[in-house]
Amino acid sequence: MHDVRMRGFRERTAVARALELLERRIQRLGDEPAPIARAAGRVAAEHVAARVSVPHFARAAMDGYALSGEATLGATAGAPVELALVGASFPGRPHGGAIRPGEAVRITTGAPVPDGADAVLMAEHAEEVAGRDGGAAVRVRQPVPPGKHVAAIGEDVMAGAVVVPAGRRLRPQDVGVLASTGVAEVRVVRRPSVRILITGDELLPPGSMPSGASIVDSNSLVLSALARRDGAGDASVEYVPDRREAVRGALAAAGGDVVLVSGGSSVGPEDHAPLVLAELGEVAVHGVAMRPAKPAGFGFLADGRPVFLLPGNPVSCLCAYEFFAGPSIRALGGLPRAWPHRRRRCVVASKIVSERGRVDYVRVRVDGDRVFPIATGGASILSSTTRADGAVIVQGDEEAVVEGDEVEVLLYDA
Amino acid sequence: MHDVRMRGFRERTAVARALELLERRIQRLGDEPAPIARAAGRVAAEHVAARVSVPHFARAAMDGYALSGEATLGATAGAPVELALVGASFPGRPHGGAIRPGEAVRITTGAPVPDGADAVLMAEHAEEVAGRDGGAAVRVRQPVPPGKHVAAIGEDVMAGAVVVPAGRRLRPQDVGVLASTGVAEVRVVRRPSVRILITGDELLPPGSMPSGASIVDSNSLVLSALARRDGAGDASVEYVPDRREAVRGALAAAGGDVVLVSGGSSVGPEDHAPLVLAELGEVAVHGVAMRPAKPAGFGFLADGRPVFLLPGNPVSCLCAYEFFAGPSIRALGGLPRAWPHRRRRCVVASKIVSERGRVDYVRVRVDGDRVFPIATGGASILSSTTRADGAVIVQGDEEAVVEGDEVEVLLYDA
Repeated sequence: MHDVRMRGFRERTAVARALELLERRIQRLGDEPAPIARAAGRVAAEHVAARVSVPHFARAAMDGYALSGEATLGATAGAPVELALVGASFPGRPHGGAIRPGEAVRITTGAPVPDGADAVLMAEHAEEVAGRDGGAAVRVRQPVPPGKHVAAIGEDVMAGAVVVPAGRRLRPQDVGVLASTGVAEVRVVRRPSVRILITGDELLPPGSMPSGASIVDSNSLVLSALARRDGAGDASVEYVPDRREAVRGALAAAGGDVVLVSGGSSVGPEDHAPLVLAELGEVAVHGVAMRPAKPAGFGFLADGRPVFLLPGNPVSCLCAYEFFAGPSIRALGGLPRAWPHRRRRCVVASKIVSERGRVDYVRVRVDGDRVFPIATGGASILSSTTRADGAVIVQGDEEAVVEGDEVEVLLYDA
Repeated sequence: MHDVRMRGFRERTAVARALELLERRIQRLGDEPAPIARAAGRVAAEHVAARVSVPHFARAAMDGYALSGEATLGATAGAPVELALVGASFPGRPHGGAIRPGEAVRITTGAPVPDGADAVLMAEHAEEVAGRDGGAAVRVRQPVPPGKHVAAIGEDVMAGAVVVPAGRRLRPQDVGVLASTGVAEVRVVRRPSVRILITGDELLPPGSMPSGASIVDSNSLVLSALARRDGAGDASVEYVPDRREAVRGALAAAGGDVVLVSGGSSVGPEDHAPLVLAELGEVAVHGVAMRPAKPAGFGFLADGRPVFLLPGNPVSCLCAYEFFAGPSIRALGGLPRAWPHRRRRCVVASKIVSERGRVDYVRVRVDGDRVFPIATGGASILSSTTRADGAVIVQGDEEAVVEGDEVEVLLYDA
């Protein structure tokens, strides 16, 4: 009478071994071009070098007068040097042509310093006067060293220099600098496309009102949001009936770079996902020494794409995602595998019980520097994660974390 | 001859005073509805309560047999109790009707516990046998207390309970729990719409190759990416010629909740933005005791919308955004004003010089726990921010931060 699948897991894989396996099998995806205006937040697939120097002309670093430093040698208050004002240079509207040693042009910050000039005299230190020939002149009362207040070509970035190393997630200023060096397009790591299969005949889509024996699926929302956090380019959801052929069909037809299957991952009579995955590829891990999410697993389709078997239980689903799917999705997109949460060291205020050989994902509240485990009725209580400020992971070599111990909290707030 | 605007700032506002002013004047925007499937990452505008309890029926917390605990009173290995197996309850496919005290139904985790039953006997502790009447039965060798392995109605969330407090940026699990309680739509704070006006006749749009006296604008990319980081719903860019009437027209026509003006904010002859803003509303602050970004300012259009005057100089632009525009955009969208960077405490490895009364934004490299200021040629060197790992803010009451001092680094990596 008993379905063998109701007997439970004979053996559970250690979390560390499961992660090693994923690290070995899952590498980053290929790359694609991104226009510079849409490259912020993407991961550079290769070193990106400046195409042009910045600045690509000698540039005034002050408002004032561009002149030849040599022409001001020996200038003093008693014996000022007067230079004829022969024009002006504004950003984008440079002085047309070179100046001679006895000449100067008005210049504003950022404007090209004309040929023949090599320094800028600050406006505050200069005095405009009527020149001997009736034209305007500028009176200089102290020498201006060549190079003063002039940004040399390439002062900011030299053409050919690497601005952004491969693997960097492009920050706002990175795309700014790249654009200023003439880079129009960057090779970036492709973002993984995530397919989410939700099994469970009792489930209504989010936005529904629960009624009768039906409940509202929350895993699709949690998984989509987590996948987007982890760099997924898209995350699409499909509801799959609790029949073996339906699960098989959906898994066989699933596109994307990663498939997440929620529900039907355990050892009950309706748990088709592991069997179906074994037929379509391989189950690498099924059953993990952890709490919650003991029935979690993962494997690979025949073409190598990873499939994560996530328990339908909402806390277990979130936990299994965070331990196994999250690092893998990040790695596919070229991001670090490490959990992306902010971390804070806190002191345990109330004992957290675990078990040697098992990794525990414990929802906690943080109060100042003190951390309290949330008393829950079990892994099905998703509200434990909304009441929590974060999670503490108790590693397999610990039996408990006791009052006064220091732990690292992974904070839920982004 | 001299335009008075070339004389420099007579007085500079302290950063703290400028921020106080912004805190007083800038409050969060109104709210709008968001379907639950698109609510992750949005800020709840009001407390959100459960519409329905979770679970909304008594639910099996284990695979096994649903039964009446009372019927198993006194059961022992020697004197087991046999209950007639009268059906099964699966999630979404409950047992049709109530059971009597001498009956049980097979049940899987998550399925409704039928009326008449109040406990679940774990599959592992039960034995199916042929019953006296020839039908199937389950043999019970120990009493099962009423309530055992049954999640009561509302165990996770009670109808009417507040699941998410007003002001919370919705995390993946928050939208999950809300959906499971029948919430289809959430009132969320509207995301600010940001208009970016880029002035500077010398500027080419990103993606161009710099040539002649023209350079490529980087501020539009940096500002757009920062605004999106800070919760902007959209950030649109317009290039504006360096003519007073053009700047006036663009500012008068700018929609959005916030306007960022890049360039033309200083006291040079081409710096039209402050004068134009004074005509169209008010300039609240112009000139700040900080480095870089001294010429930064802000004010308000006649209808109260804030306008930030950001220096065209790329590092100053970024810095002025971070100090003034960023906190304001976050506050408009209901997010905390505090800088969103990850923080790390580090030890200063090389003296950072500042000046009493001035706030400095210092780009730094981090090496282990040690922090080094980046030697730069000035505020125009945007590559200083791409070489940096983060920034240290030296407050106005410090003249310098010296070797061995502990400082907080605002890390650039998200």
